[in-house]
Amino acid sequence: MRYVLTVAYDGTEFSGWQRQKGATSVQETLENAVLAALGKTVRVTGSGRTDAGVHAAGQVCHFDLDATVPPEKMPDCLNVKLPASVRVLSGRAGAESFDSCRSAKKKTYRYSLYESEREMPLKERYAVRAESIPTLAALKKAASLMEGTKDFKAFCSSGSAVKTTVRTVYEVRVEEGKSFGSRDVFISVCGNGFLYNMVRTMVGELLDLASGKRSEESLLEAFQSGQRGLLGKTMPAKGLCLMNVAYGEEDEND
Amino acid sequence: MRYVLTVAYDGTEFSGWQRQKGATSVQETLENAVLAALGKTVRVTGSGRTDAGVHAAGQVCHFDLDATVPPEKMPDCLNVKLPASVRVLSGRAGAESFDSCRSAKKKTYRYSLYESEREMPLKERYAVRAESIPTLAALKKAASLMEGTKDFKAFCSSGSAVKTTVRTVYEVRVEEGKSFGSRDVFISVCGNGFLYNMVRTMVGELLDLASGKRSEESLLEAFQSGQRGLLGKTMPAKGLCLMNVAYGEEDEND
Repeated sequence: MRYVLTVAYDGTEFSGWQRQKGATSVQETLENAVLAALGKTVRVTGSGRTDAGVHAAGQVCHFDLDATVPPEKMPDCLNVKLPASVRVLSGRAGAESFDSCRSAKKKTYRYSLYESEREMPLKERYAVRAESIPTLAALKKAASLMEGTKDFKAFCSSGSAVKTTVRTVYEVRVEEGKSFGSRDVFISVCGNGFLYNMVRTMVGELLDLASGKRSEESLLEAFQSGQRGLLGKTMPAKGLCLMNVAYGEEDEND
Repeated sequence: MRYVLTVAYDGTEFSGWQRQKGATSVQETLENAVLAALGKTVRVTGSGRTDAGVHAAGQVCHFDLDATVPPEKMPDCLNVKLPASVRVLSGRAGAESFDSCRSAKKKTYRYSLYESEREMPLKERYAVRAESIPTLAALKKAASLMEGTKDFKAFCSSGSAVKTTVRTVYEVRVEEGKSFGSRDVFISVCGNGFLYNMVRTMVGELLDLASGKRSEESLLEAFQSGQRGLLGKTMPAKGLCLMNVAYGEEDEND
């Protein structure tokens, strides 16, 4: 049986999604929970890797297992074996053709910022501080420049080997709120796939564009030339959260 | 010079505000930061104790120190010596008659809940999960029963020695929101002072009243008799946050 799970995690203490020697990954933590709960060794495949420190509210993964546990009981079965920083939110059965990585149609990431002169301990874990964040109007204008089917090569950190660097970004949504007396800004990016560090580089560039530190012209040049050096900095991991992975009409959730 | 500081902290790893042997308190952490930064031993007095695990976005404290550091520079001076879980947000000079505890006129605490069938790792640190939380209307109705000048003896955990258990609760405000696909409920309580565990007991009782598990009659009986047994449970510490301490018109902040 192919088990498909939706998983949430606080990425602070993890070396990232992917299993690696000498470090604690989310993938290995889930595999260990299956072993502890059911005595079986499985290989868990995620919809994609998340970097060290990146969080997830709706990561999707799958594994094959010869077990009698109904998929909807898998959360209860595994959660008792998982550390508090990881929780299986739901489980379902997947077709043999389903692959949580290759079948993914759309992913949504959210980046969280807050505006404050000083660090706020109750926000620091899941958001990144800035002394000043551009206005919502300026951010929305810059966000619209990132939408569409484009070559995002310049937004990709070096070292990744991919066939194509063309991706479709369906929407870059900017929202704001207020909590603990300071301004919060959330940038949600929905696309058909993302290159390594792409969202974090998009957010850095967005802030620079909206503040006037960089121009629309240099962004267009970056899209054309693919040169990483033409863009703003890659933002820290802790502000990023994988919100949702969608697999087609019947699998849509929010 | 009397230095008055506004301090925020993530209470998760602390044994509470008050210094105690063999445990790490926020008070001691601040005193150690003054010692490390300025080489002086001080005794920091807070507006009140917060329990182990309780957070603060706006705790106020003071200490006397013969130093040339301007009060508004004290945050920069101490923050470099503090762990990331504690930050001094602002500093000012206080009159000799000012006492962060005795001079406090109003305090506001906020309790955070979220509604979810399962634990959500990104909410668990600062909020308490409930499978079902009553409607906003029912919560507001119950909240109004807690407001006013009353004897809150039944809301006080045993073991505390206070002159009077009469307190004035100016407002119990209930708000809701949504994040990561689940409902959030915030209960803010503003009063002239609070007994030990009073806010956490108020929230437990509020939930019971709003869900119909307990009646308005039993609440009135609890107010009259002062019997703790007539009320709902004391809610966990991690959902509680000291938001603000006000000292009079000129010191009002939010």
